Amino acid sequence: MMIIMHPGATKEQISHVIAHIEESNLSAHVIEGVEQTVIGAVGESHNVSRDVFEVLPGVMSVTRISQPYKLGSRQFHPENSVFPLDGFSVGGDEVAIFAGPCAVESRAQLLEIAQAVREAGANALRGGVFKPRTSPYVFQGLGVEGLEYLAEARELTGMPIVAEVMAVAQVEVMVKYVDVFQIGARNMQNYNLLRAVGETRTPVLLKRGLSATIEELLMASEYILSGGNPRVILCERGIRTYETATRNTTDINAIPVLKNLTHLPVILDPSHSTGDSAYVAAIAKAAIAAGADGLIIEVHNDPAHAISDGRQSLTPESFAKLVRQVKAVAEAVDRRLAPITVGA
Amino acid sequence: MMIIMHPGATKEQISHVIAHIEESNLSAHVIEGVEQTVIGAVGESHNVSRDVFEVLPGVMSVTRISQPYKLGSRQFHPENSVFPLDGFSVGGDEVAIFAGPCAVESRAQLLEIAQAVREAGANALRGGVFKPRTSPYVFQGLGVEGLEYLAEARELTGMPIVAEVMAVAQVEVMVKYVDVFQIGARNMQNYNLLRAVGETRTPVLLKRGLSATIEELLMASEYILSGGNPRVILCERGIRTYETATRNTTDINAIPVLKNLTHLPVILDPSHSTGDSAYVAAIAKAAIAAGADGLIIEVHNDPAHAISDGRQSLTPESFAKLVRQVKAVAEAVDRRLAPITVGA
Amino acid sequence: MMIIMHPGATKEQISHVIAHIEESNLSAHVIEGVEQTVIGAVGESHNVSRDVFEVLPGVMSVTRISQPYKLGSRQFHPENSVFPLDGFSVGGDEVAIFAGPCAVESRAQLLEIAQAVREAGANALRGGVFKPRTSPYVFQGLGVEGLEYLAEARELTGMPIVAEVMAVAQVEVMVKYVDVFQIGARNMQNYNLLRAVGETRTPVLLKRGLSATIEELLMASEYILSGGNPRVILCERGIRTYETATRNTTDINAIPVLKNLTHLPVILDPSHSTGDSAYVAAIAKAAIAAGADGLIIEVHNDPAHAISDGRQSLTPESFAKLVRQVKAVAEAVDRRLAPITVGA
Amino acid sequence: MMIIMHPGATKEQISHVIAHIEESNLSAHVIEGVEQTVIGAVGESHNVSRDVFEVLPGVMSVTRISQPYKLGSRQFHPENSVFPLDGFSVGGDEVAIFAGPCAVESRAQLLEIAQAVREAGANALRGGVFKPRTSPYVFQGLGVEGLEYLAEARELTGMPIVAEVMAVAQVEVMVKYVDVFQIGARNMQNYNLLRAVGETRTPVLLKRGLSATIEELLMASEYILSGGNPRVILCERGIRTYETATRNTTDINAIPVLKNLTHLPVILDPSHSTGDSAYVAAIAKAAIAAGADGLIIEVHNDPAHAISDGRQSLTPESFAKLVRQVKAVAEAVDRRLAPITVGA
Repeated sequence: MMIIMHPGATKEQISHVIAHIEESNLSAHVIEGVEQTVIGAVGESHNVSRDVFEVLPGVMSVTRISQPYKLGSRQFHPENSVFPLDGFSVGGDEVAIFAGPCAVESRAQLLEIAQAVREAGANALRGGVFKPRTSPYVFQGLGVEGLEYLAEARELTGMPIVAEVMAVAQVEVMVKYVDVFQIGARNMQNYNLLRAVGETRTPVLLKRGLSATIEELLMASEYILSGGNPRVILCERGIRTYETATRNTTDINAIPVLKNLTHLPVILDPSHSTGDSAYVAAIAKAAIAAGADGLIIEVHNDPAHAISDGRQSLTPESFAKLVRQVKAVAEAVDRRLAPITVGA
Repeated sequence: MMIIMHPGATKEQISHVIAHIEESNLSAHVIEGVEQTVIGAVGESHNVSRDVFEVLPGVMSVTRISQPYKLGSRQFHPENSVFPLDGFSVGGDEVAIFAGPCAVESRAQLLEIAQAVREAGANALRGGVFKPRTSPYVFQGLGVEGLEYLAEARELTGMPIVAEVMAVAQVEVMVKYVDVFQIGARNMQNYNLLRAVGETRTPVLLKRGLSATIEELLMASEYILSGGNPRVILCERGIRTYETATRNTTDINAIPVLKNLTHLPVILDPSHSTGDSAYVAAIAKAAIAAGADGLIIEVHNDPAHAISDGRQSLTPESFAKLVRQVKAVAEAVDRRLAPITVGA
Repeated sequence: MMIIMHPGATKEQISHVIAHIEESNLSAHVIEGVEQTVIGAVGESHNVSRDVFEVLPGVMSVTRISQPYKLGSRQFHPENSVFPLDGFSVGGDEVAIFAGPCAVESRAQLLEIAQAVREAGANALRGGVFKPRTSPYVFQGLGVEGLEYLAEARELTGMPIVAEVMAVAQVEVMVKYVDVFQIGARNMQNYNLLRAVGETRTPVLLKRGLSATIEELLMASEYILSGGNPRVILCERGIRTYETATRNTTDINAIPVLKNLTHLPVILDPSHSTGDSAYVAAIAKAAIAAGADGLIIEVHNDPAHAISDGRQSLTPESFAKLVRQVKAVAEAVDRRLAPITVGA
Repeated sequence: MMIIMHPGATKEQISHVIAHIEESNLSAHVIEGVEQTVIGAVGESHNVSRDVFEVLPGVMSVTRISQPYKLGSRQFHPENSVFPLDGFSVGGDEVAIFAGPCAVESRAQLLEIAQAVREAGANALRGGVFKPRTSPYVFQGLGVEGLEYLAEARELTGMPIVAEVMAVAQVEVMVKYVDVFQIGARNMQNYNLLRAVGETRTPVLLKRGLSATIEELLMASEYILSGGNPRVILCERGIRTYETATRNTTDINAIPVLKNLTHLPVILDPSHSTGDSAYVAAIAKAAIAAGADGLIIEVHNDPAHAISDGRQSLTPESFAKLVRQVKAVAEAVDRRLAPITVGA
């Protein structure tokens, strides 16, 4: 940590800061500049809050040098983490595609979509059963009934299933059904929930919050990792900016930045990051070109009658076309699509 | 709802949209423009999602005309909602001040701060017992032990207490202790939690999410109101923008905008909206000048040793000075500070 | 400047950075941390770019310690700068009010508004004659004819006049007419223009760019100050954020932050920062409560027929009411409105 | 235009709006909703400002239906605009690469970089001679001397040259030297400058402003197009958001959105949109995968001694590698790199 003193800081204030540094079992290194003094606090500081120093008299600001996250950092774990799922793996050379409806609406709808996305080349099936909705007046999900349909779809297609968990109380029942927990953008900093999935051994697909920084996403993953669950997949899904031409702004920079900072797999959700089916394929290709390890895409057999997010859902036909295009881009960047097991 | 067709939309597409409107029990009104056709969908549309129309062929965009929130809207409830608490009320002519430490750290700390803020003019005591922290490696709150100290502080000072509830499972125990539930910014769209406090009859202080729009804040309050709990206090606490000179950007516009759109009380949290004790008083005065119904402010007896948020905490002395300044501004805009009951 | 090395930086890389620091006539101070090394570069560094060090092998990031602006900094000039204009001054104890139409539309319109705002309590008259418009298809201003009308309005009312200069080529003619140059938000980083007004001795009202940081605003003012013109008035006018309920987001935090960082006067433009006449008075009061030295407000005698910005313009009546309210708030924070000279 | 009335709007207010619509030579179509009335204004409205209606009593908001830009709209010009430059064209099937130093620093530097990027596969040479710098205390460019060096580099390599024009006064001299004018992000709404280049017949590379919306970028291009210059190349170069891990946030969504809305060529500048040479190649590939028509990239022979933007500059070697990677991605999306004329 570097503590930057105000230009007019007194010798007493500087001594006081040094005393505090030593109280925290760190050692102090003073650099006297032309206008200002800077004090380095050296030692095991990742459990020392900057606040402790920011409030001392004469302190202007405090800059943390080392990363506040450890378990997810590539610094201490240079190789990519690769997680096997049914028939494929995430985080290695292969590009994985998760697809399915925003919400599980009925048995018939889910099974039809599941088969269609499998044929088109999806590796895993997504489908929401507990839906977070901005309005309390609309459909909120099928709950456990939806989980049963997902299990049936897995049986039918061989694909592992991904569903969003929205509350600690849902973990116990969902852990019996899902192959991957999804933590949605609104819950990225729901720490009780992060801890709860961190205590399971089910992989977690963690979506970036709508206005979360990349560092905050990594800190959120640290909650899961520090619970003993090493299998976290990070997902960029668009951030909120001033631009209104698209529902969100895809932070494509986040892909190479995350791949640089962490060993965890990184995927992108072009359905939410654009909010418009017309732009999903272009952004899916961009994600793979930028180095993403996979995609998660909303597909609906009848977008015009989807209960939610119809606007951003692809039809099975356009999804199949997207898979073919993504395959070409993946190969252009020396990767390949994760294989579909025959007979699945 | 207004459905705007693409310039090249065909007659068949227009007919198809009209058919969908009528399926939704709305009536269709067509306006043929020079370049584009617009179709109004008239009727009870607040439980009809825009998505239903956005995905139809030939549709360019859909604009909702009426507000998606009802119970909180001033349109249907023109008078201010005024909620009584112990010895004062929120939402009327009086300006209420909530103050206390970010986190309850110990019995001694809390009782000392409680007495100090009471003497300085606070109307209610705030203190966190379950702390959401960005890092899993730091202090997470005293839990129920902290609630006991808050109850003791209420006994001692006569002030009602406010504490943040972070999970549905905490509602049952907290409802026995707190006079006002706080929903933090990170949980503004934790719908299960909103429903849970909506089923109680304890007032709720609902903080705006870090990147939530004003409309989303009002929709979140609708979850609580629609559960049957009418007593929601809205709180602006700063939004995330590109500016880094302060921790957050106080959206002062939100004060008059919210007072215009809703009958619910609106307060401001200058401690979080600035993140720096040096700026808290200036923004507290601005909030009251702009029409806020109150303030919530972090005060610590020893900011340099606060476990969290020391940088933005005022000392009891600077808080007392702030109260005197806010009093003068309140009177300049024809309001007065809520009274402190003698002997409390 | 502090140069933070990557965790894996080699001894050679560290030596290389030290050599570069010494090449730049700075001295190097090395702090070896547990994970990373930090090197302080001490000396006259404000004309050394961070880029020079950021590109060296092994460097992770570079943090500048001292402020990159000098002439505007309160650090080297602790007292407020106070600038006299006709009959009042800006930056001292008095709160100054600049008012007038967005655009000068005709002689009759301008003279009517000028007299109305003078009677209501304005200290200076604003009016645009060269208008920057988003669309090339709409009214672009009266040009020199408008300057003549402004001069006549000054004669009539005694108020100094403020008009926006949009191009270097306009400086020569405008300097003969205006008492204060306005630099609009879109030109805040038009450096040629900043230099051109910096070579005059006419005060400059410099508006913050739509997405400029507070530091960038101060750097822009440095262009004017370093040209030899010391009289710069800074103006917060709202920033662009994700919130769409108002045209811009008033960054009220910028008022106390700027007053802390610089000795220059700081005013606020609530007309642009809200974009809606319904919210102008609330935000005007907030600005003064937060410590602003003045306001600049759009007033139109017939907003429904204003050529531009009608929506955010006040009528003379609502402006007069605003002045009375602002007066009360100014007194509550121990300031007073700048006086109106009798007979002016 | 759709005019949405307040829920409580009176019949007189509605009649008043209708009268105003007819005054503007538009026809009014009234839709009475359950809560609110909406009035459509049909006719030639692109030179009628929304402001005219927004200020009328009883009006809540006004929504424009048709696009405010015409000449750049794909609606009226469905085919891509393709502009020939020396030896290649922009906007067709070929992907064009513009490369060169941020600033022309010396004859030797420029000629060395020009030859290196030509060999690596660049189609055009960029180089700044008038530099907009945030600080007045640093290098501001070589001016006309730099233009001479650019002309020499063109002679030597056969590449057309691109340089930024920062002021109207520079147009006259630059038009003799440059093949493409660049308008920088800070000048995207410098309307006098846009008009000035609109009067030439030299192609213009127009960069998106740091906080400009996609619609504002298109409106800015309309200033150039309406001056009679049809050859505008739009350039996404990153927008300002809250994320600080990269200098700017690449709005990759802007690529397919712009390709959908306009017939003009669209390129991306990954050097500025990331601000870090480590991420330039990933984002360059993403841009082409998303459908961009080209790239503009900063290359420096000695980034550690670059006068500006060294951090984001590639070496000639890493640029050559990038070109090879981009070639593979372009082919994967059925495009090809623009050819390099032999002997050039």
